[in-house]
Amino acid sequence: MSSWSETRSPLPLLFRRHSSGEIKNLASVSSSLLPAFGTVVDEGHLRLKKYVIAPYDYRYRWWQTFLVVLVVYSAWASPFELAFRKAATGSLLIVDLVVDFFFAADIIFTFFVAYLDKSTYLLVDDHKKIALRYVTRLWFTMDVASTLPFQFIYRIFTGQLHDGRVFGFLNLLRLWRLRRVGELFTRLEKDIRFTYFITRLSKLICVTLFAVHSAGCFYFYLAAHHKIPENTWIGSQVNDFKHRSIWLGYTYSIYWSIVTLTTVGYGDLHAVNTGEKVFNMLYMLFNIGLTAYIIGNMTNLIVHSAVRTLFMRNAINEILRYGSKNRLPEGLREQMLAHMQLRFKTAELQQEEVLEDLPKAIRSSISQHLFRGTVEKTYLFQGVSVDLIAQMVK
Amino acid sequence: MSSWSETRSPLPLLFRRHSSGEIKNLASVSSSLLPAFGTVVDEGHLRLKKYVIAPYDYRYRWWQTFLVVLVVYSAWASPFELAFRKAATGSLLIVDLVVDFFFAADIIFTFFVAYLDKSTYLLVDDHKKIALRYVTRLWFTMDVASTLPFQFIYRIFTGQLHDGRVFGFLNLLRLWRLRRVGELFTRLEKDIRFTYFITRLSKLICVTLFAVHSAGCFYFYLAAHHKIPENTWIGSQVNDFKHRSIWLGYTYSIYWSIVTLTTVGYGDLHAVNTGEKVFNMLYMLFNIGLTAYIIGNMTNLIVHSAVRTLFMRNAINEILRYGSKNRLPEGLREQMLAHMQLRFKTAELQQEEVLEDLPKAIRSSISQHLFRGTVEKTYLFQGVSVDLIAQMVK
Amino acid sequence: MSSWSETRSPLPLLFRRHSSGEIKNLASVSSSLLPAFGTVVDEGHLRLKKYVIAPYDYRYRWWQTFLVVLVVYSAWASPFELAFRKAATGSLLIVDLVVDFFFAADIIFTFFVAYLDKSTYLLVDDHKKIALRYVTRLWFTMDVASTLPFQFIYRIFTGQLHDGRVFGFLNLLRLWRLRRVGELFTRLEKDIRFTYFITRLSKLICVTLFAVHSAGCFYFYLAAHHKIPENTWIGSQVNDFKHRSIWLGYTYSIYWSIVTLTTVGYGDLHAVNTGEKVFNMLYMLFNIGLTAYIIGNMTNLIVHSAVRTLFMRNAINEILRYGSKNRLPEGLREQMLAHMQLRFKTAELQQEEVLEDLPKAIRSSISQHLFRGTVEKTYLFQGVSVDLIAQMVK
Amino acid sequence: MSSWSETRSPLPLLFRRHSSGEIKNLASVSSSLLPAFGTVVDEGHLRLKKYVIAPYDYRYRWWQTFLVVLVVYSAWASPFELAFRKAATGSLLIVDLVVDFFFAADIIFTFFVAYLDKSTYLLVDDHKKIALRYVTRLWFTMDVASTLPFQFIYRIFTGQLHDGRVFGFLNLLRLWRLRRVGELFTRLEKDIRFTYFITRLSKLICVTLFAVHSAGCFYFYLAAHHKIPENTWIGSQVNDFKHRSIWLGYTYSIYWSIVTLTTVGYGDLHAVNTGEKVFNMLYMLFNIGLTAYIIGNMTNLIVHSAVRTLFMRNAINEILRYGSKNRLPEGLREQMLAHMQLRFKTAELQQEEVLEDLPKAIRSSISQHLFRGTVEKTYLFQGVSVDLIAQMVK
Repeated sequence: MSSWSETRSPLPLLFRRHSSGEIKNLASVSSSLLPAFGTVVDEGHLRLKKYVIAPYDYRYRWWQTFLVVLVVYSAWASPFELAFRKAATGSLLIVDLVVDFFFAADIIFTFFVAYLDKSTYLLVDDHKKIALRYVTRLWFTMDVASTLPFQFIYRIFTGQLHDGRVFGFLNLLRLWRLRRVGELFTRLEKDIRFTYFITRLSKLICVTLFAVHSAGCFYFYLAAHHKIPENTWIGSQVNDFKHRSIWLGYTYSIYWSIVTLTTVGYGDLHAVNTGEKVFNMLYMLFNIGLTAYIIGNMTNLIVHSAVRTLFMRNAINEILRYGSKNRLPEGLREQMLAHMQLRFKTAELQQEEVLEDLPKAIRSSISQHLFRGTVEKTYLFQGVSVDLIAQMVK
Repeated sequence: MSSWSETRSPLPLLFRRHSSGEIKNLASVSSSLLPAFGTVVDEGHLRLKKYVIAPYDYRYRWWQTFLVVLVVYSAWASPFELAFRKAATGSLLIVDLVVDFFFAADIIFTFFVAYLDKSTYLLVDDHKKIALRYVTRLWFTMDVASTLPFQFIYRIFTGQLHDGRVFGFLNLLRLWRLRRVGELFTRLEKDIRFTYFITRLSKLICVTLFAVHSAGCFYFYLAAHHKIPENTWIGSQVNDFKHRSIWLGYTYSIYWSIVTLTTVGYGDLHAVNTGEKVFNMLYMLFNIGLTAYIIGNMTNLIVHSAVRTLFMRNAINEILRYGSKNRLPEGLREQMLAHMQLRFKTAELQQEEVLEDLPKAIRSSISQHLFRGTVEKTYLFQGVSVDLIAQMVK
Repeated sequence: MSSWSETRSPLPLLFRRHSSGEIKNLASVSSSLLPAFGTVVDEGHLRLKKYVIAPYDYRYRWWQTFLVVLVVYSAWASPFELAFRKAATGSLLIVDLVVDFFFAADIIFTFFVAYLDKSTYLLVDDHKKIALRYVTRLWFTMDVASTLPFQFIYRIFTGQLHDGRVFGFLNLLRLWRLRRVGELFTRLEKDIRFTYFITRLSKLICVTLFAVHSAGCFYFYLAAHHKIPENTWIGSQVNDFKHRSIWLGYTYSIYWSIVTLTTVGYGDLHAVNTGEKVFNMLYMLFNIGLTAYIIGNMTNLIVHSAVRTLFMRNAINEILRYGSKNRLPEGLREQMLAHMQLRFKTAELQQEEVLEDLPKAIRSSISQHLFRGTVEKTYLFQGVSVDLIAQMVK
Repeated sequence: MSSWSETRSPLPLLFRRHSSGEIKNLASVSSSLLPAFGTVVDEGHLRLKKYVIAPYDYRYRWWQTFLVVLVVYSAWASPFELAFRKAATGSLLIVDLVVDFFFAADIIFTFFVAYLDKSTYLLVDDHKKIALRYVTRLWFTMDVASTLPFQFIYRIFTGQLHDGRVFGFLNLLRLWRLRRVGELFTRLEKDIRFTYFITRLSKLICVTLFAVHSAGCFYFYLAAHHKIPENTWIGSQVNDFKHRSIWLGYTYSIYWSIVTLTTVGYGDLHAVNTGEKVFNMLYMLFNIGLTAYIIGNMTNLIVHSAVRTLFMRNAINEILRYGSKNRLPEGLREQMLAHMQLRFKTAELQQEEVLEDLPKAIRSSISQHLFRGTVEKTYLFQGVSVDLIAQMVK
């Protein structure tokens, strides 16, 4: 049918096939650009060089998702180890090394993953190009810096236990890995297989928990490294806090952090020395932003979810008012209501709007698919051209 | 008229009548699906099996509404009895049993209520099918578990008074009944007989009060079961709080709960031991969400209610500006203003939009009803076809 | 011109003239219904009975505005006198009497003000009907109850000073007058002579200040009437607060009230006895709503005011992107930008939308007014019909 | 081409050229009115009088931007010097004088900057008119008053050190300069070269920091000038606060200010005497507004930024649902999705809307530019008129 060729007319520009082995056809790339919306990438089209992985390979994706789980551990452990030196030199050390190992593996993998050239929208699978691109970027430096187990290296070279202070801060470099979580959420938000509400809410909860945890740990760090232990926020309450359990210290820290974040501010714990005051101020200013962000997002979600109900209520209301104003017969009124309710149930209204944005060619293809069978069988239309039918039906 | 038959054309698919006695015609079901919008279900159409109740029977609805009132009591009593053992073993016990009896009755009733098959959109009134569907669901287990009077059974079997702790938590199973309140509000929101603003506001108030009450009671529970009474949030203020009146304990609990929820946090009461701190943290984190939810809903309501005034102000403003810019004569300006004001008063603008969404057939029926009488009497149009008239008038 | 008669065609239904002296023509009433939008009522049309005032008479309006000023005083004085007995029996007593006198006068005036019949939309100026309507309503009872100077009457009849407690609460009846402020704001919001932003902001500020003042006064009242002065929120700080100056007591009350409203909750002042706790809880719960209302309104105003800038930015952006994508020549791009900027500067876009909602007849009148002069002088169009011209120009 | 002349037709009204040397042509002025949207002003058109600077001269703009930096200093220094007398008489005095010098220079410059006549939209470069306009305005008085170094003058005339109190308040006049920051942000918001989100966020941060700083300094000022130092918010904590370092006092002040602004209100610092209470109340009331403003802006930004994602999700969803409901073949579904995704990626939808608002003439110019080349070479259309082609292509 002519309509089918018309339909494809705007697309062929994207389907250029390259004879070179280096650059793959765009059909798959175009999908790979937008895989978040639930389309499954057809990998049959794609022939990459040996030992080169496509960025949207499902195994590579699972690997990335697995790394995100490790990032969550890192996000928790980095501030925690900064604050609680005991934990950092104890059992957590081994877990840290294992996690670092996985991220080191990912750095190596990255040299074998094809990338998408931004200007040509084509996949590049040349080993040299991939390596050059990765190494010359700040990204690479940060990836390596956030993976090196500084404490371990130090201990091997000097034979001494580290003194925690410097290495605690070096550990914070691992927070660089958080960008992966950010990327994941950006992807999930566009993925229709996940509810927007849940995704957004999870993101907000993650951000909040991370803020609470980091601030709490840093506050404990400040207290643990102050010269006069009695002159700290926790020392003025618990005299020997340095020799109490990690659990007690962590509870106090997180409690203080949440009391501040939520602006409850009981006052049982509060900044005592100047250093604590300064950090506390920064944290409180940050919290204004965070609270506003949370409220803004919640408002957005609520406004969005209420639109349909409000619109429906409005439409029904107008029909009832119009009906009683013009004294329409009962049957007609019920017909109007029934029709309106059906439209809302089937979400027909929105579909129509979306379909209208499609080009005419696709729309006529749809019509043909839906009605050709029926119409062709009809006696009246036998011998009539398909195009005429499509236009009639629309 | 041909327009009438056209009008019905999209609907007949829904009006399939089944000769089987088991499954009823869809016309009524279609109404029953959407009864929230003020349509009255015509029960004449419907013939269900003996001893089977239609889910939208008005008596069954009243029963459901009555149960919601009992749910409100349960929602208040369950956390209260957990915290204040004295009350639970005293006068409230009898009220509890009566309430449980009503919910037990509802479980039995459910076996006699027809349900709507999700795939066929038809009412099922077969006793076996109804029973099978209800029993095989988690719903049934929860319904039963939330109705059994565990304390009473325990006392009968062992002859001893329960020790409160376990049964207090078993009592919390009754909060499962809260789903009925949630369902009620979802229904009310879509019911145009109730103002959206009021419905939504009531919901928010209910949620807030329940959160406040539950947290307060649980906080008292924590204090009452702590080993060292002086080392609790209330014990550090009121030494012999365990032997003071329930009223005093409840006031302190709710006061603390509200002070925390609203983030006022005077600090006269605050978490003392670790258990309290942990619960307090969870409550505060939950409160961020609740506050954001309340503000988001309020914003939604305000934005929605201000739209019309803002639109009106804008339109009048533009007309005045256009008038003065183009130096239109006073009469013309007043005419423009008067017209615009009339439209807003009669909400004509919105009606037009809604009516445009109706299919052409219904619209022409309306036009015919409104204008046929007038036009037919007019000399000029005598002998002219009705369809032509309908189109002229539109 | 025929278009002019057409324009008026939908309106004449409103211009029915009644020969009866009782009911006035609707033309003026239609204006009076909508006087908020800056239209000046032409009083020449109107002939009311002797000693009957039209509700939109400008002198009556000024009187109403003057009363609103007195309401502000009442709103401040009623809670204040409840809390500070000394002030109520002193200098404020005379001011109260004067204010009450004015409101008594307004009650009498109301018997001479015509009212608008809701069903016929006509002004009723019959004395009997006006009196009957006013007296049979709750409104009248409340007006009288809120005006009677109970303290004064009591003193005259018994010769004793009142004991404050009862009369303090009777004084709160005067808060009934606040409905006038509410009505004023509703009117101002629709009046385009006042900025929406300012009106709404003033309303929020008024509501907040009244809440703060009332709660503060009531809190002091609770303390002043407690049996053990040391066991109150203020008595635990200032021992002899009952014998200190009104100024000190008022400062403490308002300070406490604002600290609670804003959820700062320093904790230097807090509820001590159970009565205070209960009131404090109610106040805090109310504050959640108030805060949400303030934030919701602010969001509404900001979203509304940012719409135009965002739309403008968006349009310019799209044009620039389209221009560079299609490599349009510099001249064309500038032309596009210049055009878009002009439209925004002159707010042409919005005007077009509004004008499109006007009926065709009015629109063609406008076109004729604007272009007839120009076109008639043009050689080409001499002898051409006006209707053709109007359509060409549009 | 005729379309080009059409395009210009609405504009010539703006391009009036004046032969007088005093008033410049409007083409450049029209640009200068709207320079915020990224258009570069072509200064070749413009011939102003000698020693007169155009307001949109890029050097003058840099000078203005430089002054904004100095304003930031003034905004910080003015409240700071009010609170901390020591700092004001010490090293900051010289910096103040230098800054004052620059603003004095700007006052003189202003006499040489042409201004835009609001009624004629023309640039006025007559020295007398410029001077007259500037001097007769309140603006000039404020500029001078905010620039005079009162302390310095006082010292020269009396030979004594100032006593700080009066001059501290006179210094606050410099806050008049803040209007420049306000103007800058208004301009930046409309400038598409800067992200709206960042601009708005910076503005909010600036406002918040200034509020925090000012309130903190004023609070310290109140404490420093109270008769009984022990009876102040800081004196009750730090006995000899007057003789401690500026750094300690400033930290305490800002800490208190932020604790109040964020409504955390630990209670370790709180208002003690009546003066502090009154100021604290005003600050807290102001903070309600500020918080609501921040949240409102954040909500606006989030709602605006989420619109596209939500719209996209919705469209994809509807297509998938429509596809599965009507059992469309897989190929057709993918085509629909691909098309929709392309539209969103290229933001085609929004562009179309914007382009539709352009007048027909401009649109046809664009079409001609885009397609004439292609079409003219086509064999089929040789000899066909350009206008026909343009219409076909659209």
